[in-house]
Amino acid sequence: MQDVLIRTLEKVELRDPILIEGLPGVGNVGKLAADYLRDQLPAKPLATIYSKFFPPQVYVGENGVIRLVSNDLSYWKAPASSPHDLLVLGGDYQGISPEGQYEITERVLDYCSGLGVHEVFTLAGFAQGRMVEEPKVLGAATHLSRVETMKKFGVVFSRTDPGGGLIGASGLFLGLGRLFGMEGVCLMGETSGYFVDPHSAEAVLKVLSQVLLLSLDFTSLEAKAREIDRIAQKIHEAEQRPSETSGAAAPREDLGYIG
Amino acid sequence: MQDVLIRTLEKVELRDPILIEGLPGVGNVGKLAADYLRDQLPAKPLATIYSKFFPPQVYVGENGVIRLVSNDLSYWKAPASSPHDLLVLGGDYQGISPEGQYEITERVLDYCSGLGVHEVFTLAGFAQGRMVEEPKVLGAATHLSRVETMKKFGVVFSRTDPGGGLIGASGLFLGLGRLFGMEGVCLMGETSGYFVDPHSAEAVLKVLSQVLLLSLDFTSLEAKAREIDRIAQKIHEAEQRPSETSGAAAPREDLGYIG
Amino acid sequence: MQDVLIRTLEKVELRDPILIEGLPGVGNVGKLAADYLRDQLPAKPLATIYSKFFPPQVYVGENGVIRLVSNDLSYWKAPASSPHDLLVLGGDYQGISPEGQYEITERVLDYCSGLGVHEVFTLAGFAQGRMVEEPKVLGAATHLSRVETMKKFGVVFSRTDPGGGLIGASGLFLGLGRLFGMEGVCLMGETSGYFVDPHSAEAVLKVLSQVLLLSLDFTSLEAKAREIDRIAQKIHEAEQRPSETSGAAAPREDLGYIG
Amino acid sequence: MQDVLIRTLEKVELRDPILIEGLPGVGNVGKLAADYLRDQLPAKPLATIYSKFFPPQVYVGENGVIRLVSNDLSYWKAPASSPHDLLVLGGDYQGISPEGQYEITERVLDYCSGLGVHEVFTLAGFAQGRMVEEPKVLGAATHLSRVETMKKFGVVFSRTDPGGGLIGASGLFLGLGRLFGMEGVCLMGETSGYFVDPHSAEAVLKVLSQVLLLSLDFTSLEAKAREIDRIAQKIHEAEQRPSETSGAAAPREDLGYIG
Repeated sequence: MQDVLIRTLEKVELRDPILIEGLPGVGNVGKLAADYLRDQLPAKPLATIYSKFFPPQVYVGENGVIRLVSNDLSYWKAPASSPHDLLVLGGDYQGISPEGQYEITERVLDYCSGLGVHEVFTLAGFAQGRMVEEPKVLGAATHLSRVETMKKFGVVFSRTDPGGGLIGASGLFLGLGRLFGMEGVCLMGETSGYFVDPHSAEAVLKVLSQVLLLSLDFTSLEAKAREIDRIAQKIHEAEQRPSETSGAAAPREDLGYIG
Repeated sequence: MQDVLIRTLEKVELRDPILIEGLPGVGNVGKLAADYLRDQLPAKPLATIYSKFFPPQVYVGENGVIRLVSNDLSYWKAPASSPHDLLVLGGDYQGISPEGQYEITERVLDYCSGLGVHEVFTLAGFAQGRMVEEPKVLGAATHLSRVETMKKFGVVFSRTDPGGGLIGASGLFLGLGRLFGMEGVCLMGETSGYFVDPHSAEAVLKVLSQVLLLSLDFTSLEAKAREIDRIAQKIHEAEQRPSETSGAAAPREDLGYIG
Repeated sequence: MQDVLIRTLEKVELRDPILIEGLPGVGNVGKLAADYLRDQLPAKPLATIYSKFFPPQVYVGENGVIRLVSNDLSYWKAPASSPHDLLVLGGDYQGISPEGQYEITERVLDYCSGLGVHEVFTLAGFAQGRMVEEPKVLGAATHLSRVETMKKFGVVFSRTDPGGGLIGASGLFLGLGRLFGMEGVCLMGETSGYFVDPHSAEAVLKVLSQVLLLSLDFTSLEAKAREIDRIAQKIHEAEQRPSETSGAAAPREDLGYIG
Repeated sequence: MQDVLIRTLEKVELRDPILIEGLPGVGNVGKLAADYLRDQLPAKPLATIYSKFFPPQVYVGENGVIRLVSNDLSYWKAPASSPHDLLVLGGDYQGISPEGQYEITERVLDYCSGLGVHEVFTLAGFAQGRMVEEPKVLGAATHLSRVETMKKFGVVFSRTDPGGGLIGASGLFLGLGRLFGMEGVCLMGETSGYFVDPHSAEAVLKVLSQVLLLSLDFTSLEAKAREIDRIAQKIHEAEQRPSETSGAAAPREDLGYIG
């Protein structure tokens, strides 16, 4: 089979579209942000991306109907006042091998290039290894001019973070994107790295919405963040009571399922 | 070499054939069911599938003659009263890498599509992690109409199981099958997951035979199930006698070889 | 690059040649036997096989000159009294991934098929997990007629061994060889599996030389076998003296280097 | 995407160029040497090599601008007195799989062959597993005549080292280079193998500069070597004081970042 199979669901003409990528990763920040953005705009399904570099897996919906794991491209027609329509890339997985990451990213970029994309935002989490109260948004970009612009939106460009660079889709969409003549920015929300973090996703989306002049309603993302906070608090309390540690196991496991 | 090599053994014309897949997996339920179905119909060899995504291995028969590991497609000409001939896919292994799973499944589906297949049943086990007295048959399907039909045959569509979706051939034949325009159902027999389970395979086959209006003789499958029960019972008894635990090792190991 | 690159060193016409394969494996029995056969005939270099499925490695000779790891095909022109010239395949490695095993074997078989090969002998070790005084030679074959013929030469075809089949080149050359219309036999010398075993290699070669009517001088192979016996004996003695166990480390390590 | 993508940055005509390879490896000796050589000549960017066999990673510069991991080819136009221009290959990674190593090396050699390269020097470290005061330079070569020449420059060709051959790019550029009709030498600086070793890189470069009649200034490489020595000394002192071992952790970690 083709290594990466892109099924177009609808033929659309887009005005100078900007690609926004958010796939599963650290704290699921990128995926939470991209999925939330897609739902809020709302963006409509444009193409489904299947690949042998994803796990050989189908999900089963509550109604019993299966769905092959995929990445998904949605589009949003901006009002006439905006020069840019949007493309949102989300999905179940990143490629599960290094080679798969390259192959999928390159094919999606090639496809998006054909749709007229010249600009990419990638959304991700940055694991701090400690609890983060007020997540900052760190940045990296393909061009110095982009760095300067992003600083005006409060994005932090640290001399030391991320020290080892960016690994995975959020970095690769910028790195390979340059080879397609695209400019791009990675927005990384600080997060503990211990569980899914809607709070960090919100911080990332707030920057993005300012940059793209989108007015988003963050109510339900904030609700999700409070739910996580509540569970984290419970775990914290349970850990304070060493004689009852076994009672803390259940809520801790719940954390992975919220997203 | 070709990634997947399909050798046709006999050219046949089939009437609107239905593909039934059962490969090694949880409790070997799918393979037990598919092999038993093939022998009972009986289905005749149609094609042998070799692949570099299988282990580099040959089996040696009791007569000393080797056989390269493979998957195997058999066909059964239904009586004129039935609108559907059957194809049964069994074999020694699933693809041993994620990419191999995709490649093999896609090629087999392509081949079956050429034979006129529009409908697929995949047979599998569902590991409950505990002993199962009366295995239920869980389901998943490509289309909601299929879900509704299967419910009439007692198939259970749970909101929560299988929570992580289906991994491997039984899911992939449905997920990729949809891309070939096929409709399909996965039938999963509950099983402990600890050893091969002819009892669960029988439950799955009973549903399938009702759906396809086949009359199968389950005598020898039931005999195999009783043999497993007997060994499991021995292990259980041995475990009740902690002072003689070492004596339980031998029968436990036997379990893997029955199939 | 090509997955498998075969460089022909000399163009030769061969009379109905038989391929004999012996690559590194259990006890290095196959490689010891094939290399010894090549040197005794002696067979001359015919082709070198490079592949990205071998390790990315060069060996450095005592003179400081490097050599890329490879498999190597040698030929021997039989006297007019024999209907079969011989091809001997040896080398540094088997393919290091399952897919690599398939690719390399298929390409070598294709190449040998072009040279007129219809018959293959593969040489290997069979690990018994215990010391073997008088190694028997076990067999497996592509056709029942071959099994019958081999029995006359004392080859043992066991109902139970090898239970899990043959894994690696020695099995694959037979399994894929059948797809090229070749007949073949695998000769497996019993061995402990703990170290290289020239004694077992000699047992295998003796059968082969009878089958192919070759008269080989086994003097130096027997010398190598005695050297191994001597070291094994030293280790055994050292292990009998628990107070000096540390002194046994050095000779034990030596075992791996004899071959 | 292409497995290996070579982007030419400048079209140049080179006079009988010699390729010098130094990629990350043991003690980072090869990379330190190649990078230092490139900076001292100085060599100018010629081509960037991307590959799906590198990690899916971008580095972020201090200015916030990203760069996809790559290998990089630089060129140096020698003065008229020298018959050979130089090509220097450095980079972030070697291929991360055996197959990737082969693919990348073969493509780079093919590209360099097109530029007229007939001669290769590969630079590497040789791990001794003990501290090395005065690193010798060990050698291996494609041809015996090269061995003889190198001996005159003090390069050591040991009968026993490297016993297991050379693994990775430094060996493969010679081994595959021979298939391109290239002659080559590997220069291996002795090193402990415990941390990056500019001292060993200097020893290697000194030999190379004598062979190629280059006059290099080693001042800053020596400064780097002294810095490493100073840190190693600190660690050594800390280890002598068992009661304060925890204080030694920080400087030890620093070692990996100097290069």
